[in-house]
Amino acid sequence: MTDLPRTLSWEDDRLVLLDQTRLPERHLLAVGTVAELVDAIRRLVVRGAPALGVAGAFGVVLARREGVDPEVIASARPTAVNLRRGVERAAAAADPLAAAQAVLAEDVASCHAIGERGAALLGELCGPGPLRLHTHCNAGALACVEWGTALGVVRSLHAAGRVAMVVADETRPLLQGARITAVELEAIGVPHRVVVDGAAGSVIARGLVDAVVVGADRIAANGDVANKIGTYPLALAAARARVPFMVAAPETTVDLDTPSGAAIAIEQRDPAEVGTGFDAWNPAFDVTPADLVTAIVTDTRVWRP
Amino acid sequence: MTDLPRTLSWEDDRLVLLDQTRLPERHLLAVGTVAELVDAIRRLVVRGAPALGVAGAFGVVLARREGVDPEVIASARPTAVNLRRGVERAAAAADPLAAAQAVLAEDVASCHAIGERGAALLGELCGPGPLRLHTHCNAGALACVEWGTALGVVRSLHAAGRVAMVVADETRPLLQGARITAVELEAIGVPHRVVVDGAAGSVIARGLVDAVVVGADRIAANGDVANKIGTYPLALAAARARVPFMVAAPETTVDLDTPSGAAIAIEQRDPAEVGTGFDAWNPAFDVTPADLVTAIVTDTRVWRP
Repeated sequence: MTDLPRTLSWEDDRLVLLDQTRLPERHLLAVGTVAELVDAIRRLVVRGAPALGVAGAFGVVLARREGVDPEVIASARPTAVNLRRGVERAAAAADPLAAAQAVLAEDVASCHAIGERGAALLGELCGPGPLRLHTHCNAGALACVEWGTALGVVRSLHAAGRVAMVVADETRPLLQGARITAVELEAIGVPHRVVVDGAAGSVIARGLVDAVVVGADRIAANGDVANKIGTYPLALAAARARVPFMVAAPETTVDLDTPSGAAIAIEQRDPAEVGTGFDAWNPAFDVTPADLVTAIVTDTRVWRP
Repeated sequence: MTDLPRTLSWEDDRLVLLDQTRLPERHLLAVGTVAELVDAIRRLVVRGAPALGVAGAFGVVLARREGVDPEVIASARPTAVNLRRGVERAAAAADPLAAAQAVLAEDVASCHAIGERGAALLGELCGPGPLRLHTHCNAGALACVEWGTALGVVRSLHAAGRVAMVVADETRPLLQGARITAVELEAIGVPHRVVVDGAAGSVIARGLVDAVVVGADRIAANGDVANKIGTYPLALAAARARVPFMVAAPETTVDLDTPSGAAIAIEQRDPAEVGTGFDAWNPAFDVTPADLVTAIVTDTRVWRP
């Protein structure tokens, strides 16, 4: 990322977050207490499964300082497994700060590895390109420490001159695609078009993209993938159009304790996020069954569930 | 419809429209010139394939008065075949006003016939209920003169006490589901929940609805259905979940001159409707292939393409 601040960093004993609710404005928020961190996680000031893992690990440093049980951080959002993983790892360490710094460094390395592996696989599946890719929500640098998972694949391809364009779903209700992914793609100079979520299926059906690449919040042992609401319809459309559907995520997103998607708790958010003046349902995630997933690319492997 | 004004009516030599861009506010707009009508059609003050047919027919009365070619009305929106049909029928009549009044009366009768036939078919497909139905955009009284097509089926079922609830997609970018369908369902006392378009697939996958019922803007000779962008993903999800996917539309929506969906012109609307600060694509419709359609219910038949 050339011109956006880092998603998160540890400075002067506080966690400094780029406030993602205020993008494209660049606003940094310094978080010095557990209560502030839990609020920032719930409000999506910091979001994205990998970034939540790093934030959770640093949160243990805050919790230790306050004498608070870090469980309150781990349970701030239920679907992403990485958050709990980050908290548990730092909590089990003799030096939580060193552990958190390690989680951060590993996330950076992991994203670059995912990017390279995903770019290579897309070359095998779709040819050398330049490719037209479709993504949902934001699985970019701003969902991680840097580089990104799904957008990490885009970055690695783009570095080799192999991206023609990216179609980004706007991703209602919180518009992470329009507000975050579009800003990130603009920052790195990748041509892109935002579409409403309902248009994703016909974009794929009409042959306008060569592959779909998304992130994940939790991957079950059988390969079912929980990701931002609206991901599942892309997988259905990709399967029908015989377009590869790739999931890019760190190995820490794979949860062997979750046998299948049916066991994944789906966070239900405030209906007012959808709108007011009517009753709404607001599930934050959906589950894509493993049989619709062409490949899951992690920092250590390509998994075809 | 008990408490909303009629979608459109002819009063004092002008076409009086309920301005659908201002709902839930009840604002009537009197249209006395062809230019005003074309503007109202483009801005979606009046919308919905059947209502456009009626508006187009009355538009010929205005065009005759001004000595203007009514083709400008027929081409104001390209995807809905009913608009052109209404214009052509009134233009070919000796008395365009009488022809327009006939189009209006036939639309009322047609919607009631669709409602009864659709309700009966859902009884066969899903049992007596009460049923949980899923719809997209607004194919209700406000898309017609009264009663509606897809929501006409809901009304006919509801009149028999056979509707448990309706899930309405918000329908970005113009939110016809949240702004119009929710208002209409509230007016007739049908319990409902609005969801973001991206949630539709998982609502269906999770078994939360018994059937999907949508309208149509044009139906090709082979049974391919053009409807509001975001309809196709519902059909994909319904097929996978083995949930009936029903299209409810007047016979005038069937265009035998269009052999398949590939021949349907898809209206591309202003990208600014999606948002500003980024490049966007904004197709207004998508095409659902006939093999994903359980049944097309018209005023004269049940067609299983």
